[in-house]
Amino acid sequence: MQIGMIGLGRMGANMTRRLMRGGHDCVVHDTQAAAIASLEGEGAEGAKTLPQLVKALAKPRTIWLMVPAAAVDDTLAELTPLLDKHDIVIDGGNSYYRDDIRRASTVHARGLHYVDVGTSGGVAGLERGYCLMIGGETATVKHLDPLFVALAPGAGTAVPTPGRRADAGSADQGYLHCGPHGAGHFVKMVHNGIEYGIMAAYAEGLNILRNANVGKRTDAVNAETTPLRDPAMYQFDMNLPEITEAWRRGSVIGSWLLDLTATALAADPALRSFEGRVSDSGEGRWTIQAAIDEAVPSPVLSAALYARFSSRDQADFANRVLSSMRHEFGGHDELKPDSPKAKP
Amino acid sequence: MQIGMIGLGRMGANMTRRLMRGGHDCVVHDTQAAAIASLEGEGAEGAKTLPQLVKALAKPRTIWLMVPAAAVDDTLAELTPLLDKHDIVIDGGNSYYRDDIRRASTVHARGLHYVDVGTSGGVAGLERGYCLMIGGETATVKHLDPLFVALAPGAGTAVPTPGRRADAGSADQGYLHCGPHGAGHFVKMVHNGIEYGIMAAYAEGLNILRNANVGKRTDAVNAETTPLRDPAMYQFDMNLPEITEAWRRGSVIGSWLLDLTATALAADPALRSFEGRVSDSGEGRWTIQAAIDEAVPSPVLSAALYARFSSRDQADFANRVLSSMRHEFGGHDELKPDSPKAKP
Amino acid sequence: MQIGMIGLGRMGANMTRRLMRGGHDCVVHDTQAAAIASLEGEGAEGAKTLPQLVKALAKPRTIWLMVPAAAVDDTLAELTPLLDKHDIVIDGGNSYYRDDIRRASTVHARGLHYVDVGTSGGVAGLERGYCLMIGGETATVKHLDPLFVALAPGAGTAVPTPGRRADAGSADQGYLHCGPHGAGHFVKMVHNGIEYGIMAAYAEGLNILRNANVGKRTDAVNAETTPLRDPAMYQFDMNLPEITEAWRRGSVIGSWLLDLTATALAADPALRSFEGRVSDSGEGRWTIQAAIDEAVPSPVLSAALYARFSSRDQADFANRVLSSMRHEFGGHDELKPDSPKAKP
Amino acid sequence: MQIGMIGLGRMGANMTRRLMRGGHDCVVHDTQAAAIASLEGEGAEGAKTLPQLVKALAKPRTIWLMVPAAAVDDTLAELTPLLDKHDIVIDGGNSYYRDDIRRASTVHARGLHYVDVGTSGGVAGLERGYCLMIGGETATVKHLDPLFVALAPGAGTAVPTPGRRADAGSADQGYLHCGPHGAGHFVKMVHNGIEYGIMAAYAEGLNILRNANVGKRTDAVNAETTPLRDPAMYQFDMNLPEITEAWRRGSVIGSWLLDLTATALAADPALRSFEGRVSDSGEGRWTIQAAIDEAVPSPVLSAALYARFSSRDQADFANRVLSSMRHEFGGHDELKPDSPKAKP
Repeated sequence: MQIGMIGLGRMGANMTRRLMRGGHDCVVHDTQAAAIASLEGEGAEGAKTLPQLVKALAKPRTIWLMVPAAAVDDTLAELTPLLDKHDIVIDGGNSYYRDDIRRASTVHARGLHYVDVGTSGGVAGLERGYCLMIGGETATVKHLDPLFVALAPGAGTAVPTPGRRADAGSADQGYLHCGPHGAGHFVKMVHNGIEYGIMAAYAEGLNILRNANVGKRTDAVNAETTPLRDPAMYQFDMNLPEITEAWRRGSVIGSWLLDLTATALAADPALRSFEGRVSDSGEGRWTIQAAIDEAVPSPVLSAALYARFSSRDQADFANRVLSSMRHEFGGHDELKPDSPKAKP
Repeated sequence: MQIGMIGLGRMGANMTRRLMRGGHDCVVHDTQAAAIASLEGEGAEGAKTLPQLVKALAKPRTIWLMVPAAAVDDTLAELTPLLDKHDIVIDGGNSYYRDDIRRASTVHARGLHYVDVGTSGGVAGLERGYCLMIGGETATVKHLDPLFVALAPGAGTAVPTPGRRADAGSADQGYLHCGPHGAGHFVKMVHNGIEYGIMAAYAEGLNILRNANVGKRTDAVNAETTPLRDPAMYQFDMNLPEITEAWRRGSVIGSWLLDLTATALAADPALRSFEGRVSDSGEGRWTIQAAIDEAVPSPVLSAALYARFSSRDQADFANRVLSSMRHEFGGHDELKPDSPKAKP
Repeated sequence: MQIGMIGLGRMGANMTRRLMRGGHDCVVHDTQAAAIASLEGEGAEGAKTLPQLVKALAKPRTIWLMVPAAAVDDTLAELTPLLDKHDIVIDGGNSYYRDDIRRASTVHARGLHYVDVGTSGGVAGLERGYCLMIGGETATVKHLDPLFVALAPGAGTAVPTPGRRADAGSADQGYLHCGPHGAGHFVKMVHNGIEYGIMAAYAEGLNILRNANVGKRTDAVNAETTPLRDPAMYQFDMNLPEITEAWRRGSVIGSWLLDLTATALAADPALRSFEGRVSDSGEGRWTIQAAIDEAVPSPVLSAALYARFSSRDQADFANRVLSSMRHEFGGHDELKPDSPKAKP
Repeated sequence: MQIGMIGLGRMGANMTRRLMRGGHDCVVHDTQAAAIASLEGEGAEGAKTLPQLVKALAKPRTIWLMVPAAAVDDTLAELTPLLDKHDIVIDGGNSYYRDDIRRASTVHARGLHYVDVGTSGGVAGLERGYCLMIGGETATVKHLDPLFVALAPGAGTAVPTPGRRADAGSADQGYLHCGPHGAGHFVKMVHNGIEYGIMAAYAEGLNILRNANVGKRTDAVNAETTPLRDPAMYQFDMNLPEITEAWRRGSVIGSWLLDLTATALAADPALRSFEGRVSDSGEGRWTIQAAIDEAVPSPVLSAALYARFSSRDQADFANRVLSSMRHEFGGHDELKPDSPKAKP
C-alpha cells in the first residue's frame, strides 16, 4: 500500500523503514528537512510541505501522524482541509483517547475516516516490530490491515498461548482492533500505566538490593533517629548487573524491561550517568484519572506515577510542611545531609 | 511522691517541671551538668551520678528514664545493679515495645519492677499535659497513679465523650494502663504511625493548594511531557496561612496538628526556613512492621513513612534505574531541572 | 439579612436554623413538603415552589443552594430565569469547582452574581458552626458577610494562633474568601481529600491495634503461608474505646475526628453495626485528579481513596487476576476463608 | 554427581527430574510414600527415612532440602546429626535469609557446609529451567556447580545482553553465587517482592480496562455519591484475552507473567474460577521489612502486598472505622451492595 507518514522522529522514522521493508510505498514529511532527506536516501518519497504530501498520494489516501501529542490538533487543522472524502487519517502517537473521540467526530464531519493507534515498541521496534492497539470503524481498520501486518512483530516472535484458538484474530501477530474511536489509545494508555508500575517494581527492588550493605555504615546515636537493630543482617554487597542477568533466565520476573535493565547495568553498574529526574509523558496520569472515574483501586500504578513526580522535587513543599510540624510540636530541627544519621 | 528522673532533654525537663507543679519531689540526673543545674534552680534535687540519684531516693524507689531509645539499655545496665528489690524503673521514652518485653524480664529477675510509658505531648506538654500510654503489672501501675495524674492533662481539657460511662477509668484524664509489659509502647508506636499519616495528609493537601496556580506558568511543548489540558482551571493563588486558620474552626479536619501548621505558616508562609529533609524516629517504621506481621493493610501509614525516606533522597537509585530503562527503550534523555518542562 | 434557602436536608436545615439564630430572615424551599413545614414551625417562611421563594424575597435577592451536587444544574436552570439583575446565587453544596467556573459565567451573563461556598461541619455544625470556604467577586462576598458571620463558628471557638496578626482577616472566625469563582470549592475539595487521609490514618492504626493479639491464634503450617515469627510479640488485647479516649487529651494526634471515633467506639466497641462499605462523594476523587494535573505526589490521599474503593469490592477483578497468575506459575490454589491460614 | 533430595512437592519433584535429565544420581525422600514411588518409577532411588537417605549417599554427601519454610528447622534438627564432616546441606526453599545466617552457623559448628539457594521457576521450571540465587562459601558453591548447571536454564534461553563480557560469570546461565550465607535467599526475597509488584501492575491495569464500560451502567442520583461526569468516555467493552495476547509481542510490557496472564484469560476470560483471595507467602513481607530497615522507599511493592491482605478481608475493621466516622460527622449510612450507587 501507499502511505503518507508525517513526523519522522525516533518512532516515525523507524516505522517508515519497517513499512518499506514490508513492501509499502512511503511518502514522508517532517518539519526538519534533514529527517526527510535521511529517509529519501532509504527509498521514501520526501514531501517538504503537507500539500506536497497530499498531492503525492493516490486517493483514497492513508496518512499516518507520528507527532507529539501536543502537535496533533494543529497538524490536523492544516491537513484535513487538503484531503478528500474517504481519505484516512491515523494518529499513531501518544494522544489522549478523549481527543480521539473528539477528533474522530470533527474528521468524520468532513467525510474522512479516523483511526487511533497506540504504538508500543520504542527504538527497538524497527527490529522487534511494534505492538499496535487500534481504535476505529471496522471497515477502515480492515482496509489498513496490510500496514498493521508490516509494522507488527508477527506470530513467530512468541510461543503460542496454550488454549488459544488459532483463528481467534490478529492479536497473536501483535496488533488488535480494540474497539471504536479512542479504544486504541485507551488500551495504550493503560499499557503505559502498567509499564510505569512494572518499572517501579524493578527500581524499588534494585534499590533494596543496593542498600543490603547498610549494616556496614557506622552511624552516631542521636535522639532524632533510631539505630538499625540488626546491622549483621545487612552486610551484603550485591552485584546488580549480574543479579539482573541471572533473573533473565528461568525466573518468574523475566521480561523485556528486565532485559533492558540488565543492559543498562552492564554498561554502568552504579548508573552514575543518570541523575534520577524521571519524566512522565501523559499516559500514566490519564490511567489514574480513568481508574478514579471507574472507582478502580490502583495503588501500585499511582505510587509509580508519584515516584516520578517526587524524583523531580515536586514533594518539596509537602516535606517542608512536615518539617515545620515537627519543629512546632517537638522542637525538632532538620538533620542536614552531612549529619551522621541524615541518611540512615 | 518522690521520683527520680534520668534524662533532662526537651521532654524530661518539662515533665519534671510538671511533676513538681503537681507536688511531687524530683531527684534529677542528666549527662549535661547544665541541665541538672537548671532544674535545681526550679526546686529539683540534682544528682551528678546515678549512684547519687539512687542514694537520694527512699525505698522503694521510682525512677523514670527519659533518654534516647538507643541509650536505654546502657542506662539500665548501669542503674539496675544499684537498685533494691521492689524498686520501679519506668521507661518513658520512645523504646520499641519488643525491648520492653525483654527488659522487663531482665529487670524482674533482679526483683525490680518495670513499666513502659509511651509519652505524647512534645514541647507543649508542660502546659497541655502529657498523654500517657502505660504497660506493666497492674499493682505497679496503680502505685504510680499519682505521677500519671500529675503528668496527664486531666479530664477538663476535652469535652466528655457522649455515651461513655463516667466510671470507665482513667482514659478521660489522658492516661491509660493499656496492658502488660510492652503494651504502652505498642500503643505509642501506633500513635506515632497514625501521626505520620495525619501529618502527610495535611502536607499533601497543602502542596496541592500551593500548586493551584500551575496554569499560570507557561511551558514549552516537547515530546517528553504532556501539556496541562486545562490551564484555566489552575489559576488560584492560595493563601495557605489563612486557609489553615479558617480550617481550625468548625471544619471536619480541625486538630492540634492543624493548629501547629497554622502557627508555622503564620510565621513563614512559604516555609522557606525548612529544606524538607524529614527525619523519622523509629515508631513509624515499627508500626509498619507490626502491620505486616499482622497482615493488616496500611497503605496510608506506609506512604507517609516512605515520603520521609524520599525526602532524604533515599529513592535516588530507584529513580536512576527508571531513567536508565527509559533511555534503553525510548532513547529518552533526562530533562534537566532548568529545562522548560522539567517541573510541570 | 433576608435569605432564601433551597434544600433542607441534613445540612441545609441546620444552616437555616443557625442563620435564624443569628437574626436573619429565612425563606425556605425543599422538594419535601415535610422539610419545609418543619422549619416553618421554627420561624422560617416556607415556599412550596421556586417562584414562590423568589417572590417572597426582596431585591437584590440572596439565594443559597444546599442541594446534592448532581442537582445543582437543574435547580439553576429553573431558578435563574426567575431572578433579576444583581440577585446573588450561592452554591453551598459539594460541587466540583470546575462547575462553579462554568456556572459563574452562565449566571453572570444574566446579570446575576454567583458565589461558591465549601461548607464543612456536618450534623454538628448547628452547634459548632460551619467552616466556610468562599469563592467569588470581592464585592459580592463582602455583601454577604453577615450571613457568613452567623454560620461560622466565631473566633472564640479556638485559641488564637501565636504570631498571627489580629487584623489578618476573617479566617479566625472560621470563614475565608479564598479567591475568584471556584476557589471556595477548590479549597473545600482539598479539605475533604485531607479528611479522607486523616480518617484512613486512624482507621489503619486502630486495625493494627485490634490485631495486636494475632499471636494468640493458632494456625496450621502449610506451604502457602509463612508462620508468624514471633507470636509472643502479639499477645495484646487492646481496648480501643479507652485508647482513643486517652489520645483525646494531650497527645499529638488529638482532633475532632478522633473525638468522633471515641464516641463511635464507646457506643459499639467492635463497630459491629457497620459492614465496612465506605462511600466516597466526589471531593476525594477530584483532589487526586487535581494533584495529578499539578504533578503533586499524593500517595497518602490516594491510598485513602483506594481503600474506600476496595471496601466496596472494586478490586475483585484485579485480585482474581493475581490468583490466576499464581495458579499458572506455581499451581497455587486459592485458600478458602475457612482454611487454617487463610486469614493470618 | 550424586544428590539427596528431601521434599518432593511441586518444586522438589520436578527439580529431581531435571537433575536426572542432567545425568545426576538422585536419592529422594518425602513424607508421602506416593511421592517417593513416583520418582522411583522415573529412575531415582527412594529412601523411606532420613537415615536411609543418608546411608544411600556417598561421602561427602550433598543433600538438597525442598520443604516448606516452616519445616526446615525440624528437618535440619533430624538430619544433621546423621551427617558427617564436609557433608553439604542446601536449603532451596523459600526460607527467610535471616534463618540461613543462623542455620549456617549451627550447621558449621558440626563441621558441615550450608548453602542457601533461592529457586524461581514454578511448575514450568522442569522445561524452562530454574533461576538459582545462591548464598554460601565460595569453595562449596563451586563444588556444586554441576548441579546448578543442570537445574538452570542455560545461556541459550535468552539473547545475550549487549555489552556484557562473555567471561563475566555464570549469571547468563541463569544462576549466580550472590554472596555469603543468606545472600541467595535475600536476592530471592527481593525477587519475589518485585514479582508481587509486577503482578499487581498488570492486575490493576486489567481491572481498569475491564471497567472501561462503566459509562454504560445507569445509576440513580443520591447525595452519597458523585455521578460519573463523562459517561460517554467509558463505553468500551474490552476483550482482555486478546489485549493481553497482543501485548505479548513487541510491546514494552512483554514478560513471562504476561504470557501466563494471557493463558489464564484464554481459558477463562472473566476469571470466574477464582474468588480473588490472594495468598502471600513470606518473601513479599520480608522485602518490605528489609526496605524499612534500609530506609528505602517501596511504595509500589508495599501496595502490592497490601492489596493481597485486603483481598483476604484484612481491612474490614479499618473500613468499619471509616463508616463509623462518616456516620458520626455526617449522619451517613452505609450504602448496601444492592443500592443503586453502591458500586459506582
